[in-house]
Amino acid sequence: MFRLDPRLEKDTIVVGDFAVSRLLLAKDSRYPWCILVPKRRDITELYQLTAAEQAQVNLESAFLGQQLMALYRGDSLNVAALGNVVSQLHIHHVVRYKTDVTWPGPIWGVGESEPYEQETLIRHQAEISALMANNFGFVSAV
Amino acid sequence: MFRLDPRLEKDTIVVGDFAVSRLLLAKDSRYPWCILVPKRRDITELYQLTAAEQAQVNLESAFLGQQLMALYRGDSLNVAALGNVVSQLHIHHVVRYKTDVTWPGPIWGVGESEPYEQETLIRHQAEISALMANNFGFVSAV
Repeated sequence: MFRLDPRLEKDTIVVGDFAVSRLLLAKDSRYPWCILVPKRRDITELYQLTAAEQAQVNLESAFLGQQLMALYRGDSLNVAALGNVVSQLHIHHVVRYKTDVTWPGPIWGVGESEPYEQETLIRHQAEISALMANNFGFVSAV
Repeated sequence: MFRLDPRLEKDTIVVGDFAVSRLLLAKDSRYPWCILVPKRRDITELYQLTAAEQAQVNLESAFLGQQLMALYRGDSLNVAALGNVVSQLHIHHVVRYKTDVTWPGPIWGVGESEPYEQETLIRHQAEISALMANNFGFVSAV
């Protein structure tokens, strides 16, 4: 059975589920930052998924990235599967701005996470969920 | 017409061409590090490619990643499309080791690039090219 890594669980809230991936929102107000986690056991790299799963995850990822950039009007989208700290396969989607705190460097392992106001976090969760609705098997957790 | 960004050109050598992407090897001996650049004009994000191009790039990327991990026996593969410094869409594939200089942090913008011995660089280029041969439209530049 699929179980979300406890560190991912602690640092995010669930927005919903696509056909293959769970969509998480990072609880870090420095960046609009979503994470896709394919709901498969013992997978650490994209190429370990079946070809059909890879194709679906890539559709989910492209759709998510495009919608996040449309919603948050960023200067660049960082899409990354790293897995050095949490090995469970997870794909970051981070909207970056030329004015953000770590631009143009990467965001991982730099500075401290800044919590959202609870109300703002819930609003972002609802906005993102609404954009995903009816696409690629998305079922909202909101 | 497609033109490789001058900074990518300076920091890499060409290994060959897949059907959609050019395959580059970074001239930085700290990591086995390849970069895919879709040969399309004015593209900065994956989702800007056509659906068919995205599907092909994802096949090229998964195959490259799997082969690099098999060849270099890394602990983790970092796959990332960032684009904060060089906006032309390019997808990093970096084999990481628990013993490498920046583990578990990201590699971008950290420390100084370490040049290869020319002979070693050419050997890696040839090895990677040989692994890619006859897959996903690959034509070697070697």
